Amino acid sequence: MNRRMVFYMLSHMLEATAVMLILPLIVSVIYNERCFWAFLITIGIALLVGIPMSVMSRTENHVIYAKEGFVTVALAWIALSAVGAFPFVISGEIPSYVDAFFETVSGFTTTGASILTDIESMSRGILFWRSFTHWIGGMGVLVFIMAIVPSVTDRSIHILRAEMPGPIIGKLVPKARDTAKILYLIYIVMTAAEIIMLLIGGMPLFDSIVHTFGTAGTGGFGIKSDSIAGYSPHLQWIITIFMFLFGVNFNLYYLLLIRKFKTVYKSEELWCYICLALISVIAVTINIYPMYRSFSESVRAAAFQVSSIITTTGYATADFNLWPELSKAILLLLMFTGACAGSTAGGFKLSRVVLLLKMIRREVKHMLHPRSVAAVRFEGKKVDETVLNSVRTYLGIYAVSFCAVFLILSFEPFDIETNLSAAAACFNNVGPGFGVVGPTGSYADYSAVSKIVLSVAMLFGRLEIYPMIFVLSKSAWSKK
Amino acid sequence: MNRRMVFYMLSHMLEATAVMLILPLIVSVIYNERCFWAFLITIGIALLVGIPMSVMSRTENHVIYAKEGFVTVALAWIALSAVGAFPFVISGEIPSYVDAFFETVSGFTTTGASILTDIESMSRGILFWRSFTHWIGGMGVLVFIMAIVPSVTDRSIHILRAEMPGPIIGKLVPKARDTAKILYLIYIVMTAAEIIMLLIGGMPLFDSIVHTFGTAGTGGFGIKSDSIAGYSPHLQWIITIFMFLFGVNFNLYYLLLIRKFKTVYKSEELWCYICLALISVIAVTINIYPMYRSFSESVRAAAFQVSSIITTTGYATADFNLWPELSKAILLLLMFTGACAGSTAGGFKLSRVVLLLKMIRREVKHMLHPRSVAAVRFEGKKVDETVLNSVRTYLGIYAVSFCAVFLILSFEPFDIETNLSAAAACFNNVGPGFGVVGPTGSYADYSAVSKIVLSVAMLFGRLEIYPMIFVLSKSAWSKK
Repeated sequence: MNRRMVFYMLSHMLEATAVMLILPLIVSVIYNERCFWAFLITIGIALLVGIPMSVMSRTENHVIYAKEGFVTVALAWIALSAVGAFPFVISGEIPSYVDAFFETVSGFTTTGASILTDIESMSRGILFWRSFTHWIGGMGVLVFIMAIVPSVTDRSIHILRAEMPGPIIGKLVPKARDTAKILYLIYIVMTAAEIIMLLIGGMPLFDSIVHTFGTAGTGGFGIKSDSIAGYSPHLQWIITIFMFLFGVNFNLYYLLLIRKFKTVYKSEELWCYICLALISVIAVTINIYPMYRSFSESVRAAAFQVSSIITTTGYATADFNLWPELSKAILLLLMFTGACAGSTAGGFKLSRVVLLLKMIRREVKHMLHPRSVAAVRFEGKKVDETVLNSVRTYLGIYAVSFCAVFLILSFEPFDIETNLSAAAACFNNVGPGFGVVGPTGSYADYSAVSKIVLSVAMLFGRLEIYPMIFVLSKSAWSKK
Repeated sequence: MNRRMVFYMLSHMLEATAVMLILPLIVSVIYNERCFWAFLITIGIALLVGIPMSVMSRTENHVIYAKEGFVTVALAWIALSAVGAFPFVISGEIPSYVDAFFETVSGFTTTGASILTDIESMSRGILFWRSFTHWIGGMGVLVFIMAIVPSVTDRSIHILRAEMPGPIIGKLVPKARDTAKILYLIYIVMTAAEIIMLLIGGMPLFDSIVHTFGTAGTGGFGIKSDSIAGYSPHLQWIITIFMFLFGVNFNLYYLLLIRKFKTVYKSEELWCYICLALISVIAVTINIYPMYRSFSESVRAAAFQVSSIITTTGYATADFNLWPELSKAILLLLMFTGACAGSTAGGFKLSRVVLLLKMIRREVKHMLHPRSVAAVRFEGKKVDETVLNSVRTYLGIYAVSFCAVFLILSFEPFDIETNLSAAAACFNNVGPGFGVVGPTGSYADYSAVSKIVLSVAMLFGRLEIYPMIFVLSKSAWSKK
C-alpha cells in the first residue's frame, strides 16, 4: 500500500479542516462570542499537525489503488470527526469528548442525531459549525479536496467511489477531478438558491444559512428545540421541496445542465423516488388526518416528514412519534430505502432497491423457465453481473452490520422500538427515531459505549460499510 | 403446464388428509368426545372431493417440471389448510373460519401461533389434531405422498426441493422417492424416541405425544396455557434437547446411519448451529440471572428458550417478554437465522447465513485485491455461483416480503414491537413474539384481514416464498 500517499491526503484534509473552521470563527466574531477561542485553538492544532505531515509525506508516487482510496476515505472521516469535535469541548458547550465526537460524526455523516437537550442555549458560532459539518459531509470531504488539490492524479476515482454512495459510479466527464468540480458547483448553486428562497420567505439570515446546510447535506441539525415546527407553513414547504431536491441523483442535474432532458425523464430511479414519496405522502396524510385540524395541515405535515425521512434528513415539524402505527411503519421503512444514489442522502439507496426487485423478478422467471436467461436492464442499459452481485452482497453486509448495531444497543435499558429505530436512524444517517430517540428526544441517555458504537454505525452508513471494514482489515495495510 | 398432474397430486393430498384425520378421530372416540363427528364429516368431504378428482385427473403423462412442482406444493398447502380447518369449525371449538384457517396454517407450517385464549378448555381430539398438523407439516406433506404413492416419477425432485427448506437440496440416494422414505423413517424413529423419553420422565401419554408432535415439527402448539412451564425440569430438558436435535439437517442423521462420521463432524452448518446456540445460551443466562433464584434455573430457562426460538419451535417455559432487552434482541435475531437447512425448522436457515458471510468475506477481499478470484467453499465443496446468486436473491425477496407483511400489520393499533415481532414470528414460523403476541398472549386480537395476511406469511416462510409467488404468477399457469 502506498502509505505515503494516504498520509499526504490526510494532511491535506487537516489543512482543509483549518480552512473550514475559519467560517464559524468569523460567525463567532460577528456575534462576539467566547467560542471564538475554541475555533482558533482548533485551527492551530490542525495546522500544527497538518503542515509538517504534508511536508514529510510528500511523494512522487501519486498512484492510488482501490485499497488506498478506501482506507484514506475512512481514516479521513475518522480524523475529521476527531478534530471537528475539539471546538465543542474547548468551548465547554459539550463538555464530554465522547458526546462531542458523537455530535461531530453525526454532523459530517449528515445524520443529525444529537445528544443536546437544550439546543437553544448554544452559542451561534458552535451552532454554525455544527450545521456546517452537514454541508461539508454531504458532498464528501475528499471529493472537495480532490477538486482543489492539483497533485491528486486521475486514479483518485477510487476516492470518488468511496465517498459517493450508490451501486454504480459514473464519472460525468473523463477526469474524476473535473467530475468533483462539477458536482460541487451544482451543490453550491442549489445551496445558494435555498438560502435566498428562505430569506425571501422571511426567515432570518442565520437561520436560513444553518437550515440550508442541514437540508443540502440531508443532515437535519436545527437550532430550535422544536426543529422546523416554529416556522411558517410557507418556509416549511420550501424546506420540504429542497430536502426532496437534494435527494435526487446529482448526475441528473448535470444532465439537465447539458440539456439531456430525455435521459433525465427516463431515469427509473427518479420515477421510483417520486412515486414512492407520493404514495407515502398520500398514505400518511390519510392516516394522520384525524389528528390535524385541516386537510392542508395534514398534507403539509405528511409531505414534510416523508421528504425529511426518505432523504434521511431528519428535520421535523411534528412529533411523528405520536403518529399512528401505519405512518410510523412507513417512515421506518423509508429510513432504510433512502433516496437516490449519487445524492447527499443516506440509506440503502433506491437504485439498489430497484435493482434488487429486478433481480427477484428475473429469479422468479428463471425458476419457472429454467432455460430463460435475461439480463437486468436499468436506466436503459444492461447492468453488468458484477454490479448485480455486489448489490446483493451489499444487502447481506448491510443486514449483518445493522443486526450487529442493534444487538450491541440492546445492552441499554431501552425498549425494542427505541433501540431498533436508533440503530436504523444512525446507520441510515437519518437522525431521529422513535421512542426515547424520537424527534423531541435525544441520544443523550445512551451510554458512552453505545454512543461510540452509534458513531461507528453512522460512519458505516455514510461510507457504505466497506471503507470502514478495510481500515480494520490487516490485509489492506500490507505493503504488497 | 401439466395441469392434470397437478390436480392428480392434489387429489392424492385430499385422500391423504382423510387418512390423517383417522388418528384424531380415534382419539376422540377414546375420550368419548363430541368432536368425533367433526372429524367424520371432514373425512367424508375430503374423500367425496378427492376420489372423483383423482379418477378424473388420471394421466399417462407423469412428467413434472419445476413449474408444476412448485405450484402443486403451494396449492396443496393451501388446500390442506382449508380442509384441515373444518374440524375446528364443525366441532364449534373455533367458531370463526378465518380463526380456524389461521390456526391450521399455523399448525401445518409448524409456526405455532395461536388465536386460542383458553386452550385448556379444548377437547382432546381437537388438541390432538392441532398438534398432529405440526408433525405432518414438519417433514412436508407432499414428501409424504411421494414416499407412498408409486405413480410419482423421479422428476418429483422438484417437489422435494419446494418442500425441503434450504439453499442446496441433496438427494441422499439417486431416487427422490427413496430419499423421501429415508427422511420419513428417521423422522418417525426420532419421534418415537422422544415420546418414550417423555413417558419415562413422567409425562402422561397424551401430553407426551402432543408435545412430541410440536417438538418434531418445530411447531410449538401446546395444551397448557403456560406452555411447558408446568412440567418438571427434567421434562423441560428433554424437550430442549429434542428441539435442538430436530433443528439439525436430517441429511446428517442419514450420514450417521451409513457411518460417515467424519463428514458429519466436518459439517460447517452443524458447528455454526452448535456455536450460535451455545453463545446465545451463555449470553441469555448471564443476562437473566438476576431474575431467577438459582444458576441452574436460569441456565434451564435460557437453554429452553434459545433452543425453542432458534429452531423456530416456539414453546416457552418463561414469559420471555419480561426478559431484559438484550435477551429479547438475541431471541429476535435467532428468529431470523433459524436452524439448519434440511431440518423441520423455519427462518432464513443457517447455511444461507454462512454462505452469505463467506460471500461478504470474498467481496471484501476482491475489493482490496481486484485481481483475486476465489470460489466460495462450503461443507468441503466448491459452491456453484448459481447457488450463491440464488442465496443472495433469496435474502432480497425475504427482506421485501417481510417488510410487506410488517407494513400491512401496521394498520393494526399495536405498537412496533408487537407488529414487528408478529411479522417475524409468523414469517419465520416461530409462533410467539413480543408484546401482545408474547408467550402469554395470542393473535386473537388481530383483525380478520391481518390473520389472513399472517397465514399467507406463514406459508411464505414454510415454503420459502417462491412457490407462493408462482401460484399468483400468470406465467406459471401458461400451457407452454
